[in-house]
Amino acid sequence: MQPTPTASPAPTRRGLLAGLGVAAVAPLVLGTTRRPALPHQSAVAQATGGPAVLLRRASLVLTMDPALGNGPLGALQDADVLVRGGAIAAVGPALAAPPGARVLESSGKLVMPGFVDTHNHLWQAMIRGGCTDRDLFGWFRSCTDPQRGLLTPGALHSFVRLAALDAVQSGVTTLVDWVDIFSYDLVETYVRALAGTGLRFTYAMYPPAPDGALVAKVKKELVDPVPLGSFQIATHAARAARSDNLAHWELAQDLGVMLNSHVLERPEMRADDPVGVLDGIGALGPRLLMNHAVHLTDAEIAAVAEHDVRLAHCPLSNMRLASGIMRLSDLGRRGVKVGLGLDGGTNDTSDFHALMKTAIGLQRARTTEAGVFPQVHDVLRMATLGGAEVLGLADQVGSLTPGKRADLLVIDPAALNFAPRFDWTGQIVFNGRPENIEAVFVDGRPLKLGGRLVDVDTARVVREAEAEAARLRSA
Amino acid sequence: MQPTPTASPAPTRRGLLAGLGVAAVAPLVLGTTRRPALPHQSAVAQATGGPAVLLRRASLVLTMDPALGNGPLGALQDADVLVRGGAIAAVGPALAAPPGARVLESSGKLVMPGFVDTHNHLWQAMIRGGCTDRDLFGWFRSCTDPQRGLLTPGALHSFVRLAALDAVQSGVTTLVDWVDIFSYDLVETYVRALAGTGLRFTYAMYPPAPDGALVAKVKKELVDPVPLGSFQIATHAARAARSDNLAHWELAQDLGVMLNSHVLERPEMRADDPVGVLDGIGALGPRLLMNHAVHLTDAEIAAVAEHDVRLAHCPLSNMRLASGIMRLSDLGRRGVKVGLGLDGGTNDTSDFHALMKTAIGLQRARTTEAGVFPQVHDVLRMATLGGAEVLGLADQVGSLTPGKRADLLVIDPAALNFAPRFDWTGQIVFNGRPENIEAVFVDGRPLKLGGRLVDVDTARVVREAEAEAARLRSA
Repeated sequence: MQPTPTASPAPTRRGLLAGLGVAAVAPLVLGTTRRPALPHQSAVAQATGGPAVLLRRASLVLTMDPALGNGPLGALQDADVLVRGGAIAAVGPALAAPPGARVLESSGKLVMPGFVDTHNHLWQAMIRGGCTDRDLFGWFRSCTDPQRGLLTPGALHSFVRLAALDAVQSGVTTLVDWVDIFSYDLVETYVRALAGTGLRFTYAMYPPAPDGALVAKVKKELVDPVPLGSFQIATHAARAARSDNLAHWELAQDLGVMLNSHVLERPEMRADDPVGVLDGIGALGPRLLMNHAVHLTDAEIAAVAEHDVRLAHCPLSNMRLASGIMRLSDLGRRGVKVGLGLDGGTNDTSDFHALMKTAIGLQRARTTEAGVFPQVHDVLRMATLGGAEVLGLADQVGSLTPGKRADLLVIDPAALNFAPRFDWTGQIVFNGRPENIEAVFVDGRPLKLGGRLVDVDTARVVREAEAEAARLRSA
Repeated sequence: MQPTPTASPAPTRRGLLAGLGVAAVAPLVLGTTRRPALPHQSAVAQATGGPAVLLRRASLVLTMDPALGNGPLGALQDADVLVRGGAIAAVGPALAAPPGARVLESSGKLVMPGFVDTHNHLWQAMIRGGCTDRDLFGWFRSCTDPQRGLLTPGALHSFVRLAALDAVQSGVTTLVDWVDIFSYDLVETYVRALAGTGLRFTYAMYPPAPDGALVAKVKKELVDPVPLGSFQIATHAARAARSDNLAHWELAQDLGVMLNSHVLERPEMRADDPVGVLDGIGALGPRLLMNHAVHLTDAEIAAVAEHDVRLAHCPLSNMRLASGIMRLSDLGRRGVKVGLGLDGGTNDTSDFHALMKTAIGLQRARTTEAGVFPQVHDVLRMATLGGAEVLGLADQVGSLTPGKRADLLVIDPAALNFAPRFDWTGQIVFNGRPENIEAVFVDGRPLKLGGRLVDVDTARVVREAEAEAARLRSA
């Protein structure tokens, strides 16, 4: 999230929004061939006011704030959640509904903060199910690299929109997209597609060259105007790219944003000495986000812990691509801040429940010890507040602490795969599936209600993505 | 599946069925407090005739029979599948619909055989999400054992029915339930609940004592009369239980059924020398099904391969319970017949897609090699024909070979989590979710159509399971 600009930067999107009235209630999803009409404008309306929402008498609320409830997840039973002005206004029993508030009876439902996806590449919805017999390098060679070159703005918009909406319906409310080098028009398309979904997102841009002006322009003109958008600099730390890495780190510092690097995803990347490179350029610290970090040594884990470096763990991707098993138990024991990441096309589908239980299960399978980090409460925290901490957004989202922005989920446990109640907290992780997520709010705005995306013609989104895919196949 | 009895065994259920007319079309799901009215009768009607069904012009059909199509999965594009008399009548392009046939337009859909779940404990839906911080032994002590003792017939029926229907909606068409020692009335309830779902099932009964008469009675009076039911003897191979194991093996031989044993699920079970015990009693062979078999030695893998012993691999359960990583790649290389198992309450949810991709991913995470067994086509085979081979049912199900019983799935890829088309076979494994399964047929009978279970009041099934769970909590 960006600070609100003090001056109105015309002709940016935020500048344009002020004059829009009717369009502010237009459906979120629009055609791909015509330029979408700035659909994030209704998020603006919501953020500056909009009707209050009262979730009444939810059977279980996991606030993720121990000060608000019981245990490490701050659990409350039969509690209300009041959302006003896009923020959490109050959490507790029997809250009064303000005049005009929308009341959602939530008896029998579970409420928790939305999932924070700390690592994704949404455009890779283009290559779902592809090159499944390859490791990371083979997958680059045979799927990612050749396919990425085929992208048109229309195709990119279709694929990013589809994947982002898939994430939303799965309960993701904040998403970091690490984006490869794209031309300016593709970058614009990408940001527009992300913004159109109503997600809170971070666009991590790989600079096409150490071109500070272009990057600053993308940040200022494309990302900053989106109320729920924020920015990072993306890089690939490696010995051979050291001068680029340094330029990227300096750029990130100039812009006041995080540096976001892939690190030690494969054993062979040891030769790149990425942690040494990042250390050498002075990047080790809380403004550095390392993705994967599967093959850290003891010394590197100590350095990461000491410098409060942030990590994104992508266990489903690491399994598919044969990357290995992150030493998550060791990192957790050292108190390292680790979030979870779906990681785009290598995870293929956006199931945060699967991600949470895999984060638990991989450590246990490796050690045959059930007591190792993470436990159920650990992964629920990693998936929400922990992810927000990783991104430096914990003052804004990740828990239902009053004053934070209202990014939250309502889960309906009354389903064949979830019922009956035995240990609901455990069931969220081990039984939950995206289809059990009944409602998703971002910044107080409902993106999913009654199990369906709001104002989205899902069939059309799918149809348009299929048409673009067919066009690319025949080209 | 049992052979059809040549004499009509009154007063078994099959005997009773002959006189039932109207009840034969009663909804599948009935109350739990009253005795359900033998709902598998409509399966009988179907098996002996019923309308033919033509799946017309499915975009992709994975027959699992290389003789019928391309590659190891026998793939066909734009093909029809004709079901008649509960069996696959034909597969191929532009088949003629017989008079009165129900035609399902399947353009854009994917068709494949149903999933064969080689290991489950459905009653454990009672303890979903429970004892998540325990390994197998702790989970026994704190969840399984104390909770099992609380079961009433009503509660058992509710939980088994719910879990079985969850499996059906997830695409499982054949399911093996390894069932602990229960009283006769609970066994009767269990079989009735299974039969009521329309699933093809195998009831693996742990003999309460080496009581051949009781076991034979359960087989003859409860299981044999169910057209889609079959029987196994369940055991726990261990040095201390050797005489029981021998009695169980002899019983299995007397009854002409498989022996189904848990083997080396935890490293500590090495002390039980289960493979040595099974070898010593002469059970190593194709009539032996070993579950888990996580900690096999090289010599044991060689023995298993040499004797054509069958295995059930339960990767999601093995991760949750910290059991370890089965040496699936080594077993696959030796050609051992391995199926997949959801494994009840330790898997918590019935997602066969997650099971398939985890079977791939665990081996890759362990080895960091993407080329190891299993690949996508291997897990699709394991999940279907491979599972049928493990159970000795491959002459009846597991592929769409004409003449086999019609157990099959229709998958709709037009979903945010699945589209767009890139490599549909890979997408089935890595993107598919239970919600994408549009239709499920067992023995030619539709159990799920249009994404919903047929003739099942799902809300009521959930409500009744919740009521039973609440009753047990307050007791």
